[in-house]
Amino acid sequence: MTKKSPGKKKLKAKEYVDGILDGNITILSQAITLVESTLPKHSEIAQKIVNSCLPQTGNSIRIAITGAPGAGKSTFIESFGSHLVNKEKKKLAVLTIDPTSEITKGSILADKVRMETLSSHKNAYIRPTPSSGSLGGVARKTRETILLCEAAGFDVIIVETVGVGQSEIKVHSMVDFFLLLQLAGAGDEMQGIKRGIMEMADAIAITKADGKNKKNASLAKKEFENALSLFPSNDLGWKPRVSTCSSMENIGIKEIWKTISDYKKLAKNKNYFIKKRKQQAKFWMHETVKDILETSFYKNEEIKKNIVKLEEKVMKGKTSSTVAANKLLKIYSKLIS
Amino acid sequence: MTKKSPGKKKLKAKEYVDGILDGNITILSQAITLVESTLPKHSEIAQKIVNSCLPQTGNSIRIAITGAPGAGKSTFIESFGSHLVNKEKKKLAVLTIDPTSEITKGSILADKVRMETLSSHKNAYIRPTPSSGSLGGVARKTRETILLCEAAGFDVIIVETVGVGQSEIKVHSMVDFFLLLQLAGAGDEMQGIKRGIMEMADAIAITKADGKNKKNASLAKKEFENALSLFPSNDLGWKPRVSTCSSMENIGIKEIWKTISDYKKLAKNKNYFIKKRKQQAKFWMHETVKDILETSFYKNEEIKKNIVKLEEKVMKGKTSSTVAANKLLKIYSKLIS
Repeated sequence: MTKKSPGKKKLKAKEYVDGILDGNITILSQAITLVESTLPKHSEIAQKIVNSCLPQTGNSIRIAITGAPGAGKSTFIESFGSHLVNKEKKKLAVLTIDPTSEITKGSILADKVRMETLSSHKNAYIRPTPSSGSLGGVARKTRETILLCEAAGFDVIIVETVGVGQSEIKVHSMVDFFLLLQLAGAGDEMQGIKRGIMEMADAIAITKADGKNKKNASLAKKEFENALSLFPSNDLGWKPRVSTCSSMENIGIKEIWKTISDYKKLAKNKNYFIKKRKQQAKFWMHETVKDILETSFYKNEEIKKNIVKLEEKVMKGKTSSTVAANKLLKIYSKLIS
Repeated sequence: MTKKSPGKKKLKAKEYVDGILDGNITILSQAITLVESTLPKHSEIAQKIVNSCLPQTGNSIRIAITGAPGAGKSTFIESFGSHLVNKEKKKLAVLTIDPTSEITKGSILADKVRMETLSSHKNAYIRPTPSSGSLGGVARKTRETILLCEAAGFDVIIVETVGVGQSEIKVHSMVDFFLLLQLAGAGDEMQGIKRGIMEMADAIAITKADGKNKKNASLAKKEFENALSLFPSNDLGWKPRVSTCSSMENIGIKEIWKTISDYKKLAKNKNYFIKKRKQQAKFWMHETVKDILETSFYKNEEIKKNIVKLEEKVMKGKTSSTVAANKLLKIYSKLIS
C-alpha cells in the first residue's frame, strides 16, 4: 500500500489522517474514496484511517433528512444549509444516499447542480455515497464518512436519503436527529413514503408552504400533529414537532435549526446524546458482523446457483423454508471448511 | 430416532404426519414440541414432519393479533374465538408468543386460564410458543407450528403477540392479516406500543368500548382513522379499517370477522393472497439462513469472550465498529475452517 504506483502518488495512512485533521478537503475526499472502495487493500488502509481519526470524532450534530421525491429535499438543504454556514457559522457536510438513482450513480456533479449555492460555499462539503453493494455495506460506509468529516472539523453533518427504501432504518441508527420533509397535498399525504418512516421522525417539516400552498401546508401540519400525538414519546421524552417552511421564501428555516438545537440541548442535559451514540457504535459493530457474514454467504457462486432452484421449490410449496435453508447452509459449510 | 426409548414410545415421522392429517390433537401437540425443541435429533425429525405436511397446508386465514399489555387481548380472543367456533363453525388455533413473560415461560396452563371458555371448546386449540432462543428462531418455530395446525385442519390461525418488542415485525411476515388492539385512553393512546407497529396494521380495534368508556372509544376511533389516512395504502390497495368493540358485551366482534373476510376476499380476487404467501415462504428461507449464520457465530464461546471486550472498546471510542467487527470475523474464520 505504501509503494508508489506510477502516475499517482499514494499516501500512507498517517498522511491521510494528518491531512484530515488539518481540514484538507482534497485529502478528506481521497480518504472517503478509500472507505467506499471495494478493493481489500483500500478497505484495509481505510480502516486504519478511520480508526486513527476516531479520537477526533463526535463533535457534530448528525441529522438525517428524508422525504419522497418531490418533497423538495434539495432546495430545502440549499436553504437550510446556507442558513447554517452563513448565519450560524457552521461547517457543514452533506452526504447523500440515493439507492434508486441508477442514472447519476451518486454523481458529484448531479448533487452539485442540485445544491448550487451551497456547494460553492467554502464551509460546505457535499458528497454522495455510492449506492452499489449491500445496503448494510453502503450504510456502514456512510457512517465512516460521517466520522471522517467530523475529524476534518465539520460540525453539522446532514445525511440525505430518499425515503422510499430500507436505507432510512439504517440511517436512523447513525444520526442524532431524524427530520422528515413532507409536501402538503390533497389527501394521501404520505404517498410515496415507506411505512414506518413517519414513526422515526423527531420532526416533520411541511415544505413549500408558500403562495397558494400555504393553507394546505397549515392543514397538513395539524393532521401530522394529531397523528404524531398518538405515538409514544421516545426514551428521551421528546415529542416530535411539526412545522411548515418555504425554502424559496426562506421562511421557517431557522426555526427548524432551533428545533434541532433544542433537541440537542435536551439530549445532552439528560446524558442521552452520548449514550445513544455509544449504543449506535455497538449496534454498528454487530451490524457489520452480520452484513459480512451474509454477504460472504450470498456472494458464493455455488450458493447463488442453489438459491435460485430452492427459492422456486419453496415458493411452489414443494420444500419447507427451513429445509431449504438448511440445505443451503450444509452446502456452504462444506465450501468454507 | 426410530429406536424406542424405554418408557416413552417415539413415533416415526410418517406416524406423526398421519396423525396430524387425521386431526389428532395429541400427536399434533407432540409434533409441535419437536418443532420447538433445540435438540438436533428432534429438529431433524421435525423438519421431515413439516416438509411432509406442506402439501396439506395453506387452507386457513392467518391472523396476527397484537396490543400492549392491558389492551384486552385475552378477553378479545375469548370473545372473537368463541364467535368463530360457535357461529362461523371454524376450527381455530391460537398460538401465543410472549417473549416478555419470563414467569409463565409460555405455560399452557396460564394461557388456558386466560382463555377459559375457548380452551374447553372442541374446535379450539391454544398453544403458547416457547420464548427461549433467538427471536428469529422463535418466529421460525411459530411459523412451522402454523403449518402443522393447518395440516391438522384448523382454518383460522391466530398468532397473539404483546406488541412491545421486535416480534411483531417477524410475525407480520407470516400472517395474512394484522390486527392491532388498542385501548382508548386519555391522550397517549399508543403508549406502550412500539413505534412502527401501527403502520403494519390492516385493522385497528378499539377495545373495551362499553359503559363509560364508549365515548372515549368513539373518539379514539376517529383519531386513528385520521392518522391512518396519512399512510399510503398497501400493494393490495387495502385501506386499514378502525372499529370499536366490547368483548364483555360481545359488540363489534362479528364486524371484525367481516373486515377480515372482506380483506381475504379482496386479496384472493386480486391474486394477492397466494402471491404474498409465496413471498413469505421465500422470505423465511432467507431469514432462516441469516438466523442460523448469526446464531452459530454468536453462540461460539471464543467469540462471546471477545465480544465483551470489543464492545467496550467500541463504546469508549477506542476502536471503530468496523475494525472491531473485522477482528471478530477473523477469529471466527480461523475457528470454523
